[in-house]
Amino acid sequence: MERSEQAAPGYTGAMAQWISTVDDTAIGPAALLWARHALLDWLAVAIAANGEPLVTMLTAEHGGDSTAPCTLLGGTRAHVADAALINGAAGHALDFDDVASAMRGHPTVPVAPAALAVAELQRAGGIDLLRALVIGHEVESRIGERIGDAQYRFGLHPTGTTGAIGAAAACARLMRLDPDRSAHALGLAATQAAGLKCMFGTMAKPLHAGKAAMHGVMAARLAARGFTANTAALECAQGFAATQAPDGDPLPARFEPRNTMAIEKTLFKYHASCYLTHSTLEAVAQARRKHGIGLDDMETMAILVSGPHRGVCDIAQPRTGLEIKFSIQHLAVMALDGVSTASLDNYTDRQATDPRLARARERVALHTDQGGDRNAAVVEIRTRDGRTLRESANVAVPATDLDRQWQQLLAKAEAIVTPVLGGARFGRLVDAVQALDRLPSLDPLFEAIR
Amino acid sequence: MERSEQAAPGYTGAMAQWISTVDDTAIGPAALLWARHALLDWLAVAIAANGEPLVTMLTAEHGGDSTAPCTLLGGTRAHVADAALINGAAGHALDFDDVASAMRGHPTVPVAPAALAVAELQRAGGIDLLRALVIGHEVESRIGERIGDAQYRFGLHPTGTTGAIGAAAACARLMRLDPDRSAHALGLAATQAAGLKCMFGTMAKPLHAGKAAMHGVMAARLAARGFTANTAALECAQGFAATQAPDGDPLPARFEPRNTMAIEKTLFKYHASCYLTHSTLEAVAQARRKHGIGLDDMETMAILVSGPHRGVCDIAQPRTGLEIKFSIQHLAVMALDGVSTASLDNYTDRQATDPRLARARERVALHTDQGGDRNAAVVEIRTRDGRTLRESANVAVPATDLDRQWQQLLAKAEAIVTPVLGGARFGRLVDAVQALDRLPSLDPLFEAIR
Repeated sequence: MERSEQAAPGYTGAMAQWISTVDDTAIGPAALLWARHALLDWLAVAIAANGEPLVTMLTAEHGGDSTAPCTLLGGTRAHVADAALINGAAGHALDFDDVASAMRGHPTVPVAPAALAVAELQRAGGIDLLRALVIGHEVESRIGERIGDAQYRFGLHPTGTTGAIGAAAACARLMRLDPDRSAHALGLAATQAAGLKCMFGTMAKPLHAGKAAMHGVMAARLAARGFTANTAALECAQGFAATQAPDGDPLPARFEPRNTMAIEKTLFKYHASCYLTHSTLEAVAQARRKHGIGLDDMETMAILVSGPHRGVCDIAQPRTGLEIKFSIQHLAVMALDGVSTASLDNYTDRQATDPRLARARERVALHTDQGGDRNAAVVEIRTRDGRTLRESANVAVPATDLDRQWQQLLAKAEAIVTPVLGGARFGRLVDAVQALDRLPSLDPLFEAIR
Repeated sequence: MERSEQAAPGYTGAMAQWISTVDDTAIGPAALLWARHALLDWLAVAIAANGEPLVTMLTAEHGGDSTAPCTLLGGTRAHVADAALINGAAGHALDFDDVASAMRGHPTVPVAPAALAVAELQRAGGIDLLRALVIGHEVESRIGERIGDAQYRFGLHPTGTTGAIGAAAACARLMRLDPDRSAHALGLAATQAAGLKCMFGTMAKPLHAGKAAMHGVMAARLAARGFTANTAALECAQGFAATQAPDGDPLPARFEPRNTMAIEKTLFKYHASCYLTHSTLEAVAQARRKHGIGLDDMETMAILVSGPHRGVCDIAQPRTGLEIKFSIQHLAVMALDGVSTASLDNYTDRQATDPRLARARERVALHTDQGGDRNAAVVEIRTRDGRTLRESANVAVPATDLDRQWQQLLAKAEAIVTPVLGGARFGRLVDAVQALDRLPSLDPLFEAIR
């Protein structure tokens, strides 16, 4: 090998260089706005998971020390890595957190709790936290766009694995590690990365998110102390990419920064149901909004979704609150009736067997199309007064109207956080997130939570 | 699928059943004796690592709370999972801990720190700790004998990955989890298991051992609280075996207990040098012992080792203490001279360049044989008085003379522990381990360490 080639850093090294040295101005206002959206949404779904058994167990096991430095979203305190663990698992407990197509996973839930815990420990300002979120997302999506599909097919859960690397990147930036220590941090995260897809449907799935956040914190904090790892861990022979996605593309020889940040493609969940039902719900909401109709105006409804929905979200006669989450037919009539599909309280057995909704869902026909976009849905409503209204939606397309996105996120957050924090503290939380890029301290945020 | 087939537990379930219900009498005195040997050796190498930078960093980051419930081998205290982490990394810091061929890894270093921390928390007796060690070894070796080679070839570090499952098994037994919760514990360990072989040569390698111990503690303690995982995690599609060893054999349909425990095949390291030098050192020691010769009696020495040693342990003219560890030639003359190759203090730059040893090593010829057993060595010494003495050794063969093994382990432990603890406390430590199966409490052990 030529000496000049030896000197050039590989993918991990170049990524570490970028994390460590990217100019603050390269992370523009649009990315920071998206980071506020992602942070609000993550805080909301994590706070709403307060009292979920898995959060209670993790807090009993790893939290609850009132003298510890970091805030738990459930109100108590923990050490920095444990806070990342508990808040991370809480954020994925409801499976209601955001998604990144490129990553093939949930981008904010491993990164935000790691960054929040480290930021609190370091007394970082609001804008530092937002920039760390942008950097964590970028790292996750850039790795994921190369290996995410193969990784997922192989059986790994990118939220747990690639997520750890995103979390380490965010923490490395917050801690201002130099490029060399940042590379060790990426290596330490890569060798801790874990999470099997076969755990879906168990508490281990949210645990993956928490562990990813914890591993990211450990990686960055140990690297800061001088702990060493392989600094070509992502791309080297038998490294992260090779063992996580053996049939995947190799990582490119270089990590090249881009002008538009990956966080600007985050997708949010507005409904507490299976993700494959969301396009239908958005199309129904559009019909309701545009044409001023409700459930009593519906004669029949035809819904066209893509093939993969069959067998996942087509429970025709749900009997339980949980089954509602997988019943496009029932959800469509709920949505047309104006019932919030964001509110966790509306997924009850009583709701599933409500006679009026049960009768209406008999008039809903679900059709599948093998060729369609996996995430798109078309809804055709025949009204009692003889109109045929046709609406389509695809929730896999990132938003362009960011004011509307913020309003939607606010509505979702209010629906799920107010029952936990009450309206006044929810208001303070929103104010803090909204002003975050101008807040020299995160105290107002933590005061709203505690 | 037939109902009766559904009812039969798979590999993970049957293993959990065994962990939970194996009768104490099934773990016989031979296995318990081996467990005492393994425990003494692990304690010794972990205590000797006191002051190693990686141990200091981990203790600063995750330990040092004097009110925490678990003892660190460095003398301070930590929470249960953190104690497993720190003591686990310490035990592998010198790479001087034991080996299991079946596991393709280091069996005691993930299991013992996890079991010790949980045993301390639960105020378990000595025999409970020993039985937990036996169970952890069994689980590691049984998984490893099926997938260990493929796992290692794929690029994973079984000490970190399979080790987490062994640690969870040991803790599950100590905590008396029922078969169902034990299966969840195995699942939780499987989905946390991590460690890349590409980290060898960095501090991340010992970190793997510590993380494995930590994951095992977390898995068992969370499962005890009701945390859930996939309870067929080891054998299921895209489960542990499939993602850790994609080219390996599948796990068998059933886990069948055996009469002889895997711990009875543990291999110990008696020399603080590369493992591939150990058979040579044992053969030289035999020549010295049997024939009463020393370095001054040697005219020439010929050493025959297998091919893989070439390029690993054949540094003909070592200049540093580190290089001695990879110089069969230098080590052979050191050993013939009666210098302890167990003592860490003898791997110095001064030792490497000692003129008398340097002259002697010029008369040592190293030959390799592609066909030989990877771990065997033959040493042929021509003496000044015209004799030709031929000795061979193979350190990959488990000991049959257990009294001699205990004496060797004692000598090694004394050489590396006395500089840290002093002779009196070392004596108390040995007494405690020797009496462990009769000690109702682990207090004497911890008192010797603190």
